[in-house]
Amino acid sequence: MVNSNEQQNYRMKAFGDTGTKFRLERRSPAYWRVTFDIPPVNIFGPKNLPELNEIVTSIETDEQVKVVVFDSAIEGFFITHYNFLAKPEDEPNLPPGRTGLQPLPDMLARLSRASVVSIALIRGRATGVGSELALASDMRFASREKAILSQWEVGAGLVPGGGPMARLPRLIGRGRALEVLLGADDIPGDLAELYGYVNRALPDAELDSFVEALAKRIASFDKQAITETKRLVDIASLPTDAEIVPEWGAFIASVGRPASQTRLKALMERGFHRAGDVENRLGYYVGQVGAS
Amino acid sequence: MVNSNEQQNYRMKAFGDTGTKFRLERRSPAYWRVTFDIPPVNIFGPKNLPELNEIVTSIETDEQVKVVVFDSAIEGFFITHYNFLAKPEDEPNLPPGRTGLQPLPDMLARLSRASVVSIALIRGRATGVGSELALASDMRFASREKAILSQWEVGAGLVPGGGPMARLPRLIGRGRALEVLLGADDIPGDLAELYGYVNRALPDAELDSFVEALAKRIASFDKQAITETKRLVDIASLPTDAEIVPEWGAFIASVGRPASQTRLKALMERGFHRAGDVENRLGYYVGQVGAS
Amino acid sequence: MVNSNEQQNYRMKAFGDTGTKFRLERRSPAYWRVTFDIPPVNIFGPKNLPELNEIVTSIETDEQVKVVVFDSAIEGFFITHYNFLAKPEDEPNLPPGRTGLQPLPDMLARLSRASVVSIALIRGRATGVGSELALASDMRFASREKAILSQWEVGAGLVPGGGPMARLPRLIGRGRALEVLLGADDIPGDLAELYGYVNRALPDAELDSFVEALAKRIASFDKQAITETKRLVDIASLPTDAEIVPEWGAFIASVGRPASQTRLKALMERGFHRAGDVENRLGYYVGQVGAS
Repeated sequence: MVNSNEQQNYRMKAFGDTGTKFRLERRSPAYWRVTFDIPPVNIFGPKNLPELNEIVTSIETDEQVKVVVFDSAIEGFFITHYNFLAKPEDEPNLPPGRTGLQPLPDMLARLSRASVVSIALIRGRATGVGSELALASDMRFASREKAILSQWEVGAGLVPGGGPMARLPRLIGRGRALEVLLGADDIPGDLAELYGYVNRALPDAELDSFVEALAKRIASFDKQAITETKRLVDIASLPTDAEIVPEWGAFIASVGRPASQTRLKALMERGFHRAGDVENRLGYYVGQVGAS
Repeated sequence: MVNSNEQQNYRMKAFGDTGTKFRLERRSPAYWRVTFDIPPVNIFGPKNLPELNEIVTSIETDEQVKVVVFDSAIEGFFITHYNFLAKPEDEPNLPPGRTGLQPLPDMLARLSRASVVSIALIRGRATGVGSELALASDMRFASREKAILSQWEVGAGLVPGGGPMARLPRLIGRGRALEVLLGADDIPGDLAELYGYVNRALPDAELDSFVEALAKRIASFDKQAITETKRLVDIASLPTDAEIVPEWGAFIASVGRPASQTRLKALMERGFHRAGDVENRLGYYVGQVGAS
Repeated sequence: MVNSNEQQNYRMKAFGDTGTKFRLERRSPAYWRVTFDIPPVNIFGPKNLPELNEIVTSIETDEQVKVVVFDSAIEGFFITHYNFLAKPEDEPNLPPGRTGLQPLPDMLARLSRASVVSIALIRGRATGVGSELALASDMRFASREKAILSQWEVGAGLVPGGGPMARLPRLIGRGRALEVLLGADDIPGDLAELYGYVNRALPDAELDSFVEALAKRIASFDKQAITETKRLVDIASLPTDAEIVPEWGAFIASVGRPASQTRLKALMERGFHRAGDVENRLGYYVGQVGAS
C-alpha cells in the first residue's frame, strides 16, 4: 500500500491498478502525505478499514516521521459519511484494536495519541467519518470557500459513532457542539473557524502553501521535543477510550432502527451514495426526509 | 399554566388574567416555545419558580417534545437579574429538587439534562438569571444589535448563584469567563459571539427566522437519536451537580453582607427594579456604586 | 523591591540604582501595576525569580489589593523567553514552593490561585516565559498591532516548562494549542484573539485606557465577592499542580540534549539574546535552524 516514490505528484488522480484508496506518499522521511481517493465522492466504508489501519500503524511505528498531512484527491470531498451500501462480507476480519475500541474509533484514537503531528487539510466535504478523522487529527485547516464540515447523522436518525460527542465539546464548547451534532447541518469554512471546529479557514488559493510550509517547518523540528510536548497536551485534552466506547455501539444500534432506515431509504431515492446534489448538499436533504 | 392553544400568537403581550408569566405554546407536539412576560423588565423572582418548575417538568416528561425555544415578550429584556424586592413569603414551598440542588439551580440543571433540545433566543438583556438560564440551555442565539449578556453580580458585591462559575469556563475558557464574571459588565451580541458566550449573533432581522428554521429542523428529527447523542455530549461537557451546589449558598450569603446591601441600596436610589436607565445599562451603573 | 511611591510614573524607564527589574507600583491600595524592565529585551532568567516571588507573595498576602496589571517598560517586549546564558550560580536558593512545584511554575500557579484579579497587558512579545506568565494570569488583553504571543520552545528542540501544555488546551482547545506549541510560530494579536489565546486584541491606541478602566472598575468592587467567585471558577478551569509538575523537568532535560544545544547555538550565532532581528522574529528563526 505504501508508495515510496517521493517524486510522485500527490495531486495525481489516477492511482492505476493498485486498488489503493489512501495513498501514502513520503515527501521526506519526516513528512508524509496521505491522500484519500475513493471515487466518486470519498465515501468511507468497512472495505477501507484495513488500509487506514495500515497507515495508522505505519505512523505509530516509523521512527523518522514527524508530521503527516491528510488530504483528498477527489474534487469536492475530503472524506464523507460511512458507506451504508456495504455488505456484511465487506467487514474486515481485523484483530481487536489496541485501545479495546471497535476498529474505526480505535484507529482514530491511536492517531490522536501517536507521536506524530497529524494535520487535516480540508477541501470539500468532511462529513461523518471525514469530520471524525479531522477531529482525531491534531490540527485542521480548511478552505474558506470549499470546505464543509458536518456531523449529519442525527438528521438521518443515526447517532454518530466515531468520537465526535467526546471530541467536539472539548474543542468548541458544549453549545456549539450540540448545534453541530443536533442541528446536523453543513458548516462552511468560515463558521467552522469561528466555532473552532477548524484551527483556521484560509482562502482556497493559500491553503496548500500554508499547510505545506507548516508541515515542512514541523518536520525540521526535533522529534523528541514534539513527542514529549504532545504527550503533555494529551493529558488535559484527549477523551479517555472509555468515554468513546459507547459511541460506536450507539451508531450500529441506530442503523437498525426504523427511524434511520426510513430516512436512509428516502435519501437513497434522491441520490444518496452517488455523485450529485444529495451528496453535495447533505445538510439540506436530511432536513427534508423527516419533515412532515 | 400551560397554554395549549397553539394558534395563539406568541408575541401577544397581554396574557389576560391568567397570571402566567412564562407562557408555554406548543407550536407542534415536537416543538414548544416558552415566552417570558414579567413586566416591566422581566425580573425573575421566587414567585416565578413554581411556573418555571412546571415548564421544566413538562419538558422532562412529555414524550413527544424534541425542541423548546425560550424567548421574551418584553422589549429590551430576555430575562434579567433576580428580584431583590421579593419578600420572604414569596419563597415558594417547593419540594427538594431532584438533583439535590436549590430550586433555581435544580431547574437549570434538569433543563440541561433533559432529552429535549433547548434553545435560548436572546433579544434584549440576559443578565444574571437570564444569562444563567441561557447558559443552562443547549444553544444560544443572540440579536447582534439588541442582545446584551452579563453576569453583573460581582459589581454589586454579590456572588452569582445559578451555575455560571461552573458553566462559563467550560464554554468560553477561563480567561474570558473571569472577565465576564469579575468585570461584571455588559457584553453585546458580537462580543458574546467572539467569546462563544452565544453560538452566534445574528442580525436582529434574521434572528427569528433562523431560530424558527433550526427548531423546526430539529423537530423533524428522530427523538431517540437526539436523546442518545445529547446524552453522550453531556458526559464531557456538563458540570456535576456537586460542582454547582456551592454557588447558590454563596449567592444567598453575599446578599446579606454590607458590601452588597450598600450597593443594592445605591442602585435602588438610582432606579433599579424599575423600567429605565439603571436596568437598561446595569453594567455602567454597577461600575459607579462602588467607586470612591 | 517594592516601590511604594504611588506618584511615580510607571512608564519611567530609568529605575536608577535599585537593580529592580519588576517594579511594583501601588496605583491605589486596591490596584497595583507590575512593570517589567529587564533591558534590552525582557529576557527572564533565574536571577529574576526572587523578585517575581516577592511580588507574587505580596499579591497573595496583601489584604487590600484586588487587581494587578502586568505590563512592560521595554518597547517591543512584554516578557520573552528564558535566559539561556544564565550561569549555575544565578540559580537562586529559594525555599521549595508552596505548591511543591519548581520555582517558576510554583509562582505562576500561585498567581492563578491568588484572591486577586491578574491582568496581562500585552504589548510586544510574550514568548516562552512571557506567554506562560500571561496564561497564568486571569485575563489577557493584547495590542492588535504590537502584540506577539508564542511558545517557541519546540522550534529549538525544547519542551516548554512553565505550564502551557496544561493551560493552553483548556483555554483554546486541543487543536489550536497543538498548533501554537508544535508550530512554535509567532501569533499576532488578531490571531491570538480569534484563538482565545488572549481575551481580546485592541487597537494599540486604546489598549492602555481599556485596561486602566477595567482595572479601576474591578478595584471598586467588593474583595470578598471577587475572591469567592474566582475560587468557584478555579474548580473547573485550573489544572492541578500534579498536571503541571512534569513540564519543568521535561524542559530542563530538553535543554541538555544535543538537538536543542545545536539549535540554541545556531540561534546565538545569529544574534539570539541580543536586541535585533532574531529576538524580534523568533518564530521565523526557529524555522531556519533545524531545516536541512
